[in-house]
Amino acid sequence: MNREIQLIKRPEAAPSHEHLKVVETEQPEPRQGEALVKLLYVSVDPYMRGRMSDAESYIAPFQLNEPMEGGVVAEVVQSKDDSLNQGDIVTAMLPWREYALVKADSVRKVDPSLGPVTTSLGILGMPGLTAYFGLMDIGQPQKGETLVVSGAAGAVGSTVVQIGKIVGCHVVGIAGSDEKTSYLMNELGVDEVINYKKENMADALANACPDGVDVYFDNVGGDISDRVYPLLNKYARIAQCGAIASYNVPNDQGPRMQMHLIKSSALIKGFTVGDYQTRFNEGFNYLSKWLKEGKLTYEETVQEGFETIPDAFFGLFEGKNIGKQLVKVSEPSSN
Amino acid sequence: MNREIQLIKRPEAAPSHEHLKVVETEQPEPRQGEALVKLLYVSVDPYMRGRMSDAESYIAPFQLNEPMEGGVVAEVVQSKDDSLNQGDIVTAMLPWREYALVKADSVRKVDPSLGPVTTSLGILGMPGLTAYFGLMDIGQPQKGETLVVSGAAGAVGSTVVQIGKIVGCHVVGIAGSDEKTSYLMNELGVDEVINYKKENMADALANACPDGVDVYFDNVGGDISDRVYPLLNKYARIAQCGAIASYNVPNDQGPRMQMHLIKSSALIKGFTVGDYQTRFNEGFNYLSKWLKEGKLTYEETVQEGFETIPDAFFGLFEGKNIGKQLVKVSEPSSN
Repeated sequence: MNREIQLIKRPEAAPSHEHLKVVETEQPEPRQGEALVKLLYVSVDPYMRGRMSDAESYIAPFQLNEPMEGGVVAEVVQSKDDSLNQGDIVTAMLPWREYALVKADSVRKVDPSLGPVTTSLGILGMPGLTAYFGLMDIGQPQKGETLVVSGAAGAVGSTVVQIGKIVGCHVVGIAGSDEKTSYLMNELGVDEVINYKKENMADALANACPDGVDVYFDNVGGDISDRVYPLLNKYARIAQCGAIASYNVPNDQGPRMQMHLIKSSALIKGFTVGDYQTRFNEGFNYLSKWLKEGKLTYEETVQEGFETIPDAFFGLFEGKNIGKQLVKVSEPSSN
Repeated sequence: MNREIQLIKRPEAAPSHEHLKVVETEQPEPRQGEALVKLLYVSVDPYMRGRMSDAESYIAPFQLNEPMEGGVVAEVVQSKDDSLNQGDIVTAMLPWREYALVKADSVRKVDPSLGPVTTSLGILGMPGLTAYFGLMDIGQPQKGETLVVSGAAGAVGSTVVQIGKIVGCHVVGIAGSDEKTSYLMNELGVDEVINYKKENMADALANACPDGVDVYFDNVGGDISDRVYPLLNKYARIAQCGAIASYNVPNDQGPRMQMHLIKSSALIKGFTVGDYQTRFNEGFNYLSKWLKEGKLTYEETVQEGFETIPDAFFGLFEGKNIGKQLVKVSEPSSN
């Protein structure tokens, strides 16, 4: 038997169990040129919320009564493709389906010598590349500048703060629990941390950024960003990576911010990691070098069981995870 | 006798006569190295609203019970500076004061062979340079792209739409009266015009921009920009020049727009003309070349009388002017 997780209703606000359903399906049989893989790890990411809506976007919406889809690590269990062998570990964008068919050109083999295979979904995968390109290409941080990161304890944010330290910035991390802020300060060496759920944001930011804000890597938008904009220095750069505070709020309203941009001649640029596809090797090389040198570290929050994927996904919007949120679906056969 | 216009109260919302006052003052006497000038023309500009508030900004606020200040054209009537001669026409940032003292290094002589002296406050002055640099440096318009301009019939906007046509863009101009839209279409050659006070903005924009929006030169912010954001194409660029719709609205709220930026990997950059100070010659040379070649034209709305400056200024926020709003204070002595 095989199982998949389907989108059965589009959410207006927060996604919940009424929108997703575990469905039993057929075990597929690979044809010539295909391989059968079994899922080992599934990545759940905030951007997937966007694909649950049918609004026009950079990426096609999920279809109703079809499986959700995302980054996974999987193992080849049967191959009719010459370039894939049984036992190979691969990463790919695949449906949330325990067993799936792939073609060689839609997967990337994972090199286990670079680190645990889960890093291909985290620091050496899309979140790591998102952090690298958003910060370096849009943020253009300079030594001595102040870098503020919202969602700082997440998969992307926790990489951004560390690259900020490598560059030599004064790094301020915003997160939503004492556990997260203590992780940021004690394990990642962030200079100043703010627990936005406990502290007065305006005061806390003013204290943490005595020289204003030069670079803002924004994963959240909403009220938190409203408080950052007034502190922007002349020619500040904002890398708009996400806006998780707005994803589940239809017609979300807030203070208009154009005047802050004019006052500080500041720049906001939205992006998705796909914009940098032609430069992925550059990012991957830096990230794996820094990881090897011990300049980068990472955290994973791993939950177990295919049927728990929806809960892991919903938890992203409640800020439950530190670092990369993963679901372990099965053990590699080689273990 | 001499007169000046002082800021006597800071406005919370729209500026009015309770905030400004005409005050009689002494006729100043130039000392060695100074010259006495009499105002000929005063420029009133939306950005001045920002300086009436004491919020921190890129430019110091006006002081209470001190004169307002801005761009003027003036004539030297008495000089104790070797490099300024009686009869010279100069442009400078000066207080709203009929007779004022200047030093040679704080004024620029106007070359009357380039056009009427008032162009130094318009198409060959700050508004023209604002249009040129915002569009060319931030907007980076390409031939065949769609350029939308808000506040299109104002001093800056009317220059932007014409440069857009020189580049070869599909130019869409938004303005607030039929007189303005007809000026844009019939005199400036804009491809599509929208009267935002009469038309349904969402429908009108969709019709005017069948291929989406690549460049948005924004002078107004507010509701109008809310309607432009959903049409942004991948990698769209927004030059945020002004936000006149928000200037007189304390705590102005609107739909959050970060998600539009992420969806289209779009960029917004605020700016002021001073950011380009080192490149003013480049802009000035292009603008005067295009003006000479007849590729650029301009309109002025001229009101008469020093004491009418406040009304001319207030009128900007009611959208009264087409092109550059000026106040003629006196005749040059040479006439």
